[in-house]
Amino acid sequence: MRIPLDRKGPTPLYRQIQSFLREQIRTGHLIPESRLPASRLLAESLGVSRITVVNAYAELEAEGLVYSRPGSGTYVAAQLRPFPEVGDYNTGRDWPLWQQELLSRSWQPLLQEIDKCIASVEHPDLISFTAGLGAKELFPVDDFGKTMREVLRRDGMEALDYGDPAGYPPLRTTIAHILTSQGIPTHPDEVLVTSGSMQAIAMVAHLTLNPGDVVFVESPTYSMIIDLFRSVGARIQGIPVDEQGMMVEHMEDLMQSGQPNLVYAIPTFQNPTGSCMSGQRRRQLIALAERYNVPVLEDDFAGDLRYGGRVQPALKAMDPGGRVIYVSTFSKMLMPALRVGFLVASGPALDRLLALKRTMDLATSNLMQRALEAYITVGRYQAHLRRACRVYRQRRDAMADALKSSMPPGITWQVPDGGLFLWQQLPADWSADELFPLAGEEGVIYAPGSFFYPGGRVKRNLRLNFAMHPPERIVEGVKRLARAIERYTEWKQQEYPQSLRERQVPV
Amino acid sequence: MRIPLDRKGPTPLYRQIQSFLREQIRTGHLIPESRLPASRLLAESLGVSRITVVNAYAELEAEGLVYSRPGSGTYVAAQLRPFPEVGDYNTGRDWPLWQQELLSRSWQPLLQEIDKCIASVEHPDLISFTAGLGAKELFPVDDFGKTMREVLRRDGMEALDYGDPAGYPPLRTTIAHILTSQGIPTHPDEVLVTSGSMQAIAMVAHLTLNPGDVVFVESPTYSMIIDLFRSVGARIQGIPVDEQGMMVEHMEDLMQSGQPNLVYAIPTFQNPTGSCMSGQRRRQLIALAERYNVPVLEDDFAGDLRYGGRVQPALKAMDPGGRVIYVSTFSKMLMPALRVGFLVASGPALDRLLALKRTMDLATSNLMQRALEAYITVGRYQAHLRRACRVYRQRRDAMADALKSSMPPGITWQVPDGGLFLWQQLPADWSADELFPLAGEEGVIYAPGSFFYPGGRVKRNLRLNFAMHPPERIVEGVKRLARAIERYTEWKQQEYPQSLRERQVPV
Repeated sequence: MRIPLDRKGPTPLYRQIQSFLREQIRTGHLIPESRLPASRLLAESLGVSRITVVNAYAELEAEGLVYSRPGSGTYVAAQLRPFPEVGDYNTGRDWPLWQQELLSRSWQPLLQEIDKCIASVEHPDLISFTAGLGAKELFPVDDFGKTMREVLRRDGMEALDYGDPAGYPPLRTTIAHILTSQGIPTHPDEVLVTSGSMQAIAMVAHLTLNPGDVVFVESPTYSMIIDLFRSVGARIQGIPVDEQGMMVEHMEDLMQSGQPNLVYAIPTFQNPTGSCMSGQRRRQLIALAERYNVPVLEDDFAGDLRYGGRVQPALKAMDPGGRVIYVSTFSKMLMPALRVGFLVASGPALDRLLALKRTMDLATSNLMQRALEAYITVGRYQAHLRRACRVYRQRRDAMADALKSSMPPGITWQVPDGGLFLWQQLPADWSADELFPLAGEEGVIYAPGSFFYPGGRVKRNLRLNFAMHPPERIVEGVKRLARAIERYTEWKQQEYPQSLRERQVPV
Repeated sequence: MRIPLDRKGPTPLYRQIQSFLREQIRTGHLIPESRLPASRLLAESLGVSRITVVNAYAELEAEGLVYSRPGSGTYVAAQLRPFPEVGDYNTGRDWPLWQQELLSRSWQPLLQEIDKCIASVEHPDLISFTAGLGAKELFPVDDFGKTMREVLRRDGMEALDYGDPAGYPPLRTTIAHILTSQGIPTHPDEVLVTSGSMQAIAMVAHLTLNPGDVVFVESPTYSMIIDLFRSVGARIQGIPVDEQGMMVEHMEDLMQSGQPNLVYAIPTFQNPTGSCMSGQRRRQLIALAERYNVPVLEDDFAGDLRYGGRVQPALKAMDPGGRVIYVSTFSKMLMPALRVGFLVASGPALDRLLALKRTMDLATSNLMQRALEAYITVGRYQAHLRRACRVYRQRRDAMADALKSSMPPGITWQVPDGGLFLWQQLPADWSADELFPLAGEEGVIYAPGSFFYPGGRVKRNLRLNFAMHPPERIVEGVKRLARAIERYTEWKQQEYPQSLRERQVPV
């Protein structure tokens, strides 16, 4: 093979070889499955070093144009065809009728709206308080990478199999230990590992709800949950929340006029309000669940991120047996990309949930579970938790102080005893949706409260994540928010401008 | 601190220190949050090397009894409480009524029965042909471990975030390239990454089926799919399969008397029969989907594992647009523990599926997707595929030859052109369920065919996985199966013994 090389130009030799061969393959001069010259021979004939040819071949392999057979050589691969333009599929297409029907019976996912809303903001140095996560810098990236490799070395192919559908047994034991040490007596057999806690919640929704069934949730509540319950066709009844959490006393009347099929609650450091359900309301809720024969789904996504206040027992810990299904996750504490959560249930429900789990994704990644188990001894989990709580407490305080010193009168908030969120309230006739584009212009964004209401959209609130940024950024973000509020106050006295109206949160 | 040490005995010193401290913690002599002596000081006072004390502390930390604060020292952890015996929860318990109702409206998962059936067999050297997987030794364990660490180094915390809910964009591009090169023109925007193909199928089921709706499937079909469709309350209509795949010509009559809401098909190397749908039937199926406005879900779990025969176009490649949703996976080809599959759809269905995906588990592990993307260039995928096909072809041939030389007359099978399974048929009045315990006694097991029928359980067939074991094991396994059949033949002439009846496949 003769390849013309420019030995004086700026293009490295391996690139020149790569380009030449690419062209030969593209034009069909080198046909699929033909063997390229051995790198040693080609190097000799071109008068270049062997590594130059090896590099050229490796680049071509990365492009998918050639492949190597170990011990045999390098071959031309079947050629890549360009994929169709989306235009081919999506423009001027008459979708089949069933697809058009999907549109008519569809719910608009809140999460999609939130994404759109966030994407609408452009700022070179945006401070975002929108996220539902903790601080990324606490994630043990490097340690976890090491653990992952160690597990692959230790367990080999074993780690790459499906594994136990209920979850890797030693991990279930660790989870049971952690929960038991936190006052939720749990046996490993009652633990079901899931692909994040979202899957656990989806499984319970699919187990307990048919289209038209009723589910009680806090109002406001986690927006993804509203999407989920809509997707199963449930009717969602919101129960108001105050500083003491879900106002359970409103539930009994509603239950008498029509029994719900599920109660979903986030009793501790509720999302989005941060409030914590009082002990009395917890007892009341369990009693109602018992009296009205309703399953309770307890979402404890951040229950152990506590920075102050009195510990309340989990609903699960008060359960006389089989009334409460408990879900939690490692995503908030460690790493979202683990996608490892879990639920605790007992009795026939546990069996049904295991069967459902298998129909939903067969099993949660065995490798991730093993790596997590190797990483998370009970002691290490508790150490990590202590570290996280120390950092987050500082940040919560930084935000509370910043708000105190920069918010005008009439704006209120409640400093939560734990979790990730602070819930702020604007004066009665204000709208956090209207404020949003102004805040974006100032370089700060938040989660507009209107996304968290299952019924009509209440617009007075905003959710601020205080855990994600270091104190300096929090202080700066709050300052920006104060400036936006100042501008909004001025607008409120005149007329809200049309130019902003178009960019406010879509309804 | 004075710790009595036996310097002459067989117990290593660090173990003695560990035991002593454990005892102190257990008995409350060392209280939670108290600080242990610095390792250097304790080592000096005990006259041992520092590493001895460090090891003892590390062991205690692994036990969850102590934890270390970086730069501060080692502290006694809050104590582990023993978790409750399951007995506390599961015996003599009156489950709440809603739990008892779950039992009454429940379907018996086939997968659970299969597990039970497999677990009932005890043999010191069992050869199992039951699995739905390829050969584990082809899984690139070590390379993949390296890639995983490299990705964590390269992407850092980025790799541990939730990521794009539709999937890691470069991975979607790679998938689109692979599919396009295989004759299924696909744009990256049409690809949705899922947690295994099972999740993709579950999403389509939840999108298209409400309780009472009708779904057409091949009969026999993948048993997990039967469980899935039962879990959503669908009515399952089986369509018979012959050597040319699903007998599409039976479908039109059924469609006229009641339109199904979904057709699920595995047109290529069908599970469990291994048969491949003819080109004519494929065209017919697409035409029917068009005429009767029915979505088609094409499961192509092993479509590229071809060892012979003529390539048929995927249904998706014949789709005039938006009729077919295509799902596939990397589990069969690479590693089940990846839990990465994907679907290809377009139009409104794609939007709805993305929304459903988020309600089901938010996102598939970003880390796994990045590692897979780094590992799987198009060229490397094709090289791996070629290697797998070479190995599996040999194994298929080894099984076909072994069956030919050892099966008695009256027993038939079809040698598939690809995939993982060989489907064997017994004489008309025989039962693979009855044969099962005999085979187990001989040291070989298979997947009894009765698990694959959505309607009444046909018992004449067995599914043999030929891809998992090396040829010698296959030959040995088939010999054992032949011996079991010989014994079964003898029993058939007398009476099937009661002792075996109790151990046959549960109905």
